[in-house]
Amino acid sequence: MNDTPLVLEPIGWVESPLVDLERAPLQGDEGAPDAWLVFEPRVSAGMRDLRVGTDVLVFTWLDRARRDVLRVHPRGDRSRPETGVFSTRSPDRPNPIGLHRVEILAIDGVRVQVRNLEALDRTPVLDVKPVLGPWSER
Amino acid sequence: MNDTPLVLEPIGWVESPLVDLERAPLQGDEGAPDAWLVFEPRVSAGMRDLRVGTDVLVFTWLDRARRDVLRVHPRGDRSRPETGVFSTRSPDRPNPIGLHRVEILAIDGVRVQVRNLEALDRTPVLDVKPVLGPWSER
Repeated sequence: MNDTPLVLEPIGWVESPLVDLERAPLQGDEGAPDAWLVFEPRVSAGMRDLRVGTDVLVFTWLDRARRDVLRVHPRGDRSRPETGVFSTRSPDRPNPIGLHRVEILAIDGVRVQVRNLEALDRTPVLDVKPVLGPWSER
Repeated sequence: MNDTPLVLEPIGWVESPLVDLERAPLQGDEGAPDAWLVFEPRVSAGMRDLRVGTDVLVFTWLDRARRDVLRVHPRGDRSRPETGVFSTRSPDRPNPIGLHRVEILAIDGVRVQVRNLEALDRTPVLDVKPVLGPWSER
């Protein structure tokens, strides 16, 4: 309701063997490779409590997506009826924010290795959040 | 790795009785009220497959958060040690993206009523995604 532009500042980048959009799996648990999140040194104080062996939510900016798409065939399958993008996980959508649940495999300074990340090499990372457990553990 | 600014375009806004940051619950299942998502008419084709009774993930821009915070006391409790923001759900973080799992209660044109949304009135909405079920249902 005000006109200040909402500008994202990447907190880091994905380093991945995935470089080809056509070959990327559709979800992380469908054969995505392990990858590294490389944090910007200026935000390193924010990552100091990440722990190997835990699951986290990684938010990315799917910078190769189309933002003018509002309906898609789910999973690119043209035999399935066109569906509004807010009912799909299509990367093509007005704000192409990727959400990925991954396990942390290793931490080396500002580099964090994660399992099964279906994001392309050099994808901007926007945020990392813990998976919420039951109330008693918050 | 390139310098194009990453600019979000809100797809809508939250209408909620919550107007006071100090009184807002910390998570949606801790007493947040029902609220409305009001979509921009230009994206209405993207919401046409939303269904009453289903759970969705709502992404918001927590526009009253501080972006220069990297360590916080979890849940604002000063008896708990300072923790890196990427290991907390603090709204204060470099990119204050809110993630909310909510149930759709009603749909009326571009207005969608949801249960238990802990976002303040007039918070920008960035995206809505389905909750991913098992592989066989994707």
